[in-house]
Amino acid sequence: MSSTWGENIKLSVFGGSHTGAIGVVLDNLPPNQKIDLDAVRVQMARRAPGKDKTATTRAEADEPQILSGLLDGVTTGAPLAAIIANTNTRSKDYSDLKVHPRPGHADYTAAVRYDGANDIRGGGHFSGRLTACLVFAGAICRQILEKRGVTIGAHALRVGAAWDTPFDPVNVSAAELNALNTRFFAVQDADAEQKMRDEIECARLQADSIGGVIECAAVGMPAGIGNPMFGGVENVLASILYGIPAVKGVEFGAGFAVGEMRGSENNDPFYYDETGAVKTRTNNAGGILGGITTGMPVLFRIAVKPTPSIGQPQQTVDLTAHRDAPLMIVGRHDPCIVPRAIPVAEAAAAIALMDLLRGAWRD
Amino acid sequence: MSSTWGENIKLSVFGGSHTGAIGVVLDNLPPNQKIDLDAVRVQMARRAPGKDKTATTRAEADEPQILSGLLDGVTTGAPLAAIIANTNTRSKDYSDLKVHPRPGHADYTAAVRYDGANDIRGGGHFSGRLTACLVFAGAICRQILEKRGVTIGAHALRVGAAWDTPFDPVNVSAAELNALNTRFFAVQDADAEQKMRDEIECARLQADSIGGVIECAAVGMPAGIGNPMFGGVENVLASILYGIPAVKGVEFGAGFAVGEMRGSENNDPFYYDETGAVKTRTNNAGGILGGITTGMPVLFRIAVKPTPSIGQPQQTVDLTAHRDAPLMIVGRHDPCIVPRAIPVAEAAAAIALMDLLRGAWRD
Amino acid sequence: MSSTWGENIKLSVFGGSHTGAIGVVLDNLPPNQKIDLDAVRVQMARRAPGKDKTATTRAEADEPQILSGLLDGVTTGAPLAAIIANTNTRSKDYSDLKVHPRPGHADYTAAVRYDGANDIRGGGHFSGRLTACLVFAGAICRQILEKRGVTIGAHALRVGAAWDTPFDPVNVSAAELNALNTRFFAVQDADAEQKMRDEIECARLQADSIGGVIECAAVGMPAGIGNPMFGGVENVLASILYGIPAVKGVEFGAGFAVGEMRGSENNDPFYYDETGAVKTRTNNAGGILGGITTGMPVLFRIAVKPTPSIGQPQQTVDLTAHRDAPLMIVGRHDPCIVPRAIPVAEAAAAIALMDLLRGAWRD
Amino acid sequence: MSSTWGENIKLSVFGGSHTGAIGVVLDNLPPNQKIDLDAVRVQMARRAPGKDKTATTRAEADEPQILSGLLDGVTTGAPLAAIIANTNTRSKDYSDLKVHPRPGHADYTAAVRYDGANDIRGGGHFSGRLTACLVFAGAICRQILEKRGVTIGAHALRVGAAWDTPFDPVNVSAAELNALNTRFFAVQDADAEQKMRDEIECARLQADSIGGVIECAAVGMPAGIGNPMFGGVENVLASILYGIPAVKGVEFGAGFAVGEMRGSENNDPFYYDETGAVKTRTNNAGGILGGITTGMPVLFRIAVKPTPSIGQPQQTVDLTAHRDAPLMIVGRHDPCIVPRAIPVAEAAAAIALMDLLRGAWRD
Repeated sequence: MSSTWGENIKLSVFGGSHTGAIGVVLDNLPPNQKIDLDAVRVQMARRAPGKDKTATTRAEADEPQILSGLLDGVTTGAPLAAIIANTNTRSKDYSDLKVHPRPGHADYTAAVRYDGANDIRGGGHFSGRLTACLVFAGAICRQILEKRGVTIGAHALRVGAAWDTPFDPVNVSAAELNALNTRFFAVQDADAEQKMRDEIECARLQADSIGGVIECAAVGMPAGIGNPMFGGVENVLASILYGIPAVKGVEFGAGFAVGEMRGSENNDPFYYDETGAVKTRTNNAGGILGGITTGMPVLFRIAVKPTPSIGQPQQTVDLTAHRDAPLMIVGRHDPCIVPRAIPVAEAAAAIALMDLLRGAWRD
Repeated sequence: MSSTWGENIKLSVFGGSHTGAIGVVLDNLPPNQKIDLDAVRVQMARRAPGKDKTATTRAEADEPQILSGLLDGVTTGAPLAAIIANTNTRSKDYSDLKVHPRPGHADYTAAVRYDGANDIRGGGHFSGRLTACLVFAGAICRQILEKRGVTIGAHALRVGAAWDTPFDPVNVSAAELNALNTRFFAVQDADAEQKMRDEIECARLQADSIGGVIECAAVGMPAGIGNPMFGGVENVLASILYGIPAVKGVEFGAGFAVGEMRGSENNDPFYYDETGAVKTRTNNAGGILGGITTGMPVLFRIAVKPTPSIGQPQQTVDLTAHRDAPLMIVGRHDPCIVPRAIPVAEAAAAIALMDLLRGAWRD
Repeated sequence: MSSTWGENIKLSVFGGSHTGAIGVVLDNLPPNQKIDLDAVRVQMARRAPGKDKTATTRAEADEPQILSGLLDGVTTGAPLAAIIANTNTRSKDYSDLKVHPRPGHADYTAAVRYDGANDIRGGGHFSGRLTACLVFAGAICRQILEKRGVTIGAHALRVGAAWDTPFDPVNVSAAELNALNTRFFAVQDADAEQKMRDEIECARLQADSIGGVIECAAVGMPAGIGNPMFGGVENVLASILYGIPAVKGVEFGAGFAVGEMRGSENNDPFYYDETGAVKTRTNNAGGILGGITTGMPVLFRIAVKPTPSIGQPQQTVDLTAHRDAPLMIVGRHDPCIVPRAIPVAEAAAAIALMDLLRGAWRD
Repeated sequence: MSSTWGENIKLSVFGGSHTGAIGVVLDNLPPNQKIDLDAVRVQMARRAPGKDKTATTRAEADEPQILSGLLDGVTTGAPLAAIIANTNTRSKDYSDLKVHPRPGHADYTAAVRYDGANDIRGGGHFSGRLTACLVFAGAICRQILEKRGVTIGAHALRVGAAWDTPFDPVNVSAAELNALNTRFFAVQDADAEQKMRDEIECARLQADSIGGVIECAAVGMPAGIGNPMFGGVENVLASILYGIPAVKGVEFGAGFAVGEMRGSENNDPFYYDETGAVKTRTNNAGGILGGITTGMPVLFRIAVKPTPSIGQPQQTVDLTAHRDAPLMIVGRHDPCIVPRAIPVAEAAAAIALMDLLRGAWRD
């Protein structure tokens, strides 16, 4: 495994769905940063399961226990470590997953990678539960970023056939993002939420699941941040975003739409705004040129695949008998993880932008 | 700058469009690997400019001069270093770019990031010319991979409105990839090439440029490679692919299409093939589950933005006079970089897969 | 802070003397390794305080609680994480240390580095208590190494004026090392222990402390391990050994004695032993040539400074009043940390050698 | 191989004694730093061979050719790359070294590590010639450091039985260091140089070589630099210093002498100096407490082994015939590399301190 991430801050994530606890270490945070733990809990709650019919009914408090790095609510500069207890682990027999790997899950690949030693219970270290660690770490980082004027927010852009209004890439504001970034199932357009819930409910009633796309923006990032060629903003964001289970695509600004665009359309014209700052009139670049921030909103989208655990009969193999075999998955599942993945996307963005800013050195 | 990449092999890229040379160091390659330099030259030539009207007329031999790491055509285990001379640098005055940053280029962001010290001549270290270094390094890595049974190939999937036939995600073969991976402007479907050339020529005649999408596949990757959460195949590939200038999106397998898929449709059913190997009947996963290879073809797509240098009047700012200003770019430009970016995508894939395989340790 | 270490395995250490717990994450261990937790406890006990008059009377069980990475006593391949509770933290007032930094401690430098935010209680993250995390991680690594034939052991080579017999650099054996590596206050020569205890007791009676040197050997390392120039065995070992508080010198083989040696004396002649293996007749190289193991015992020494906390009056500054000030440290201290540091040296060696072996790839 | 180093700046070293060239890439240097290439040449000349009888008679200009990263003598922020041609490579047959590994050299270990593929000519990538790359990189870094008030200098502390006066650990000054750091065979005491030259000449006349110790100091480092536990000043310095061939020991401040010291003696009392700065009256800590600079001179020593190439008959093995064999090395060798290693030690220190300062971020 390689669950360590970061150049300028170091993130280490550990635990599995059914281990003693899951946890996270954040090394090299700046000292003297006041952390509001209630605001951290708000983020944890957004991701926590058991809210409604869009998510698994497994309910866990997800209360982080901070072991070090904070003193009287202020970062000390030493590694900030926290664990989250696994309180709702059904003691069922998971051994069948070793024999019959679930399609779309990591059961088979993990068995090959770890020579069968991987902890299969609840998906082990591959469980979406690990994203609680990202949300915790991101909740710390976003508070530090907010004091520096950086605000992050995301919404469900699509779930199946239902779409929300995309962000205005030029004018998306901190106020808009703040209206989203403490909500469960954040969308911009009230109608969109209901349409998306209908998509999800329909999938759930058919014992199926549904995928989606999340759009995330960060405003307030100063121009000049990023370290090309390989430490650019896109590289750094993508390298952590693909650590979120179920993400199969990451795009910035106009993203894949650039494939049909002309340069005259895609190029964002520069101008001076009334404050004397250099801005661009459009933002197809997603706030990033040459891997470096332009000062415009940083904008990205991630594709979230439908939850692989579904209640329909599936085809798999029997790894013991070496033959094909049918599979019927029983248990609690999210028919759609998009709503719960929204705070995870924001958290990953916060960690990545923190890392990038932490490495900026002005001479 | 941070032009160093890799966990298990270390890549260091240096140089600018108009510096003495560009170059690359590849550290920690396995020893005793026979390298065919003619095959390297084939790859260099695919990326080199000056071929036809789809590309800039700047012509350079791009002959790599190997300084170390090869002895009698065999890797020694010491860092493999090569430089490529910059032979065709027009000695014109580039100082205007410091005053009038080109929309869609890194001129402005680099000036902020490097406090105006960046080498602006020909785009400096941000020039697409640096991809010659990736192609060289990739040409080394792909030869080593080929001996281990891994074959990589890519094609232009779309240019503007023109599309090529996508790879069959399940059945794409080494033979098909080998038919593509030594060609210039590789496509699967002969009609597609002409349609794409028409798109490009049309853009060129309008003093414009056009974007596209490249699809790349690697077959022969053994199952069980990748280091989740953050060292997974997607994370590693994306972190280098976003080092290619102009890439604004990366997706794997079904990619962004998962946003409209059901789990029952997206899940790839497992089965035993006639050789006793575990396979999947579909390959929406793009050969990767939980960040780890499944043994199926590894499949990804990158979105390539239209070249920002266009011959039309544009709006920018005058950074000296602090006011808006018109801009007219004169010179040699690629109306579409997709054809030349195909070998670059393959090269980046080869480097990334080499890094992942190099880190695999069997107990 | 940067309490993350390693290239091929990733170690993350967190916690402080008086935080909720201290802990450690070990990422990228090989899967399917059986771990004997009783053997881990033996190592923890060797380092734990409160044994006798050579050490602080603070007594803590130092029982590690494993949170993830082990299933039924076998490594899963996922990050192995453990915490150790801080059970014996006297709730006294430490605020005076912020005003009056202790000479020889990190109180002053940490205050500058972390702008006064560092947790000063018990030394915070700089406390020798953190070495319990190294011992835990090392105890895991050494068990994996032992199955591959690598045995590590150390002894107190000197404490003040008292010396133990050095290892025979050529013939030191696994049996000898095993006789040392489960003992408290390991020495080769029974007389040496008493002389060292006398040195320590004498220092203690004078409210003083005393330094020493620890010698450590690893036998069974195969030839050909190490990655020069900067990933050589010496570089890797030194980079972790200097993470042990109080270490002020690291030397390999003949070490600083090479300064007076001739080449004819220092060069270790090669020969074939009776098993057909290449050996050297002497081992001034400490088992390392060009950063790579020779197959001979790997041998190093570390200099351990006297505990800075002493019961004598000292001179310091008053950082609030900005003037010089006297200091009298009251409390429990080790008059000599050499005995407790022996298992820490072994543990650091085990982690470093594990990292080096983990990165070895045979083609 | 792993010839890449650094956290905040990235150093990549390549080449071998007889390859086309040797070279170095320095990534992530601050932009806008004026570099005096004549001052770089001064450092290169200090290390270059052929000066007098203390060194090999191989004479090479060692003129670095800068390929990128400098524009009009100023750093651009892009990777700074340079190569140094190998102009004086005698075209003799080196194949015997593959059969008869030289004692004390890396011939044998490299053959095992690289399965016989390593370039043995002149020692290949293990050649001391590679230190020219360190000197170049260090010469760049020290100029940047000097503008920030950091001055580095070193001297031969001992050669065999001859000793120079050690630095005053408290009062060593920039003036003293500047008097040393452009000299060949830098010593503080004129007598010492002659005594050392006598030691070397005596060894040379006996077809032997002799080792030594180099002491290095850096003054002007601000307090508060370093990232414990594993990114401390000692860890970072040691990790690069052990990349210099022949170094077998590294110690800081009092170093191994702490083994006989009492805490009351070793602790450095704090006081306020006349400028209101916190200082220590002694400097046994070598300017480092808890891995972080104190603001006092940073002081370290390295042990340099006697050149393994000697003109006396030696014992080795015949790796082809699998039997013991005599060896007689013929050719040009340094009877003592200490004089030429002095600028290398300074260079390594400059690179390490640059890396540490580059990572310092003030909130």
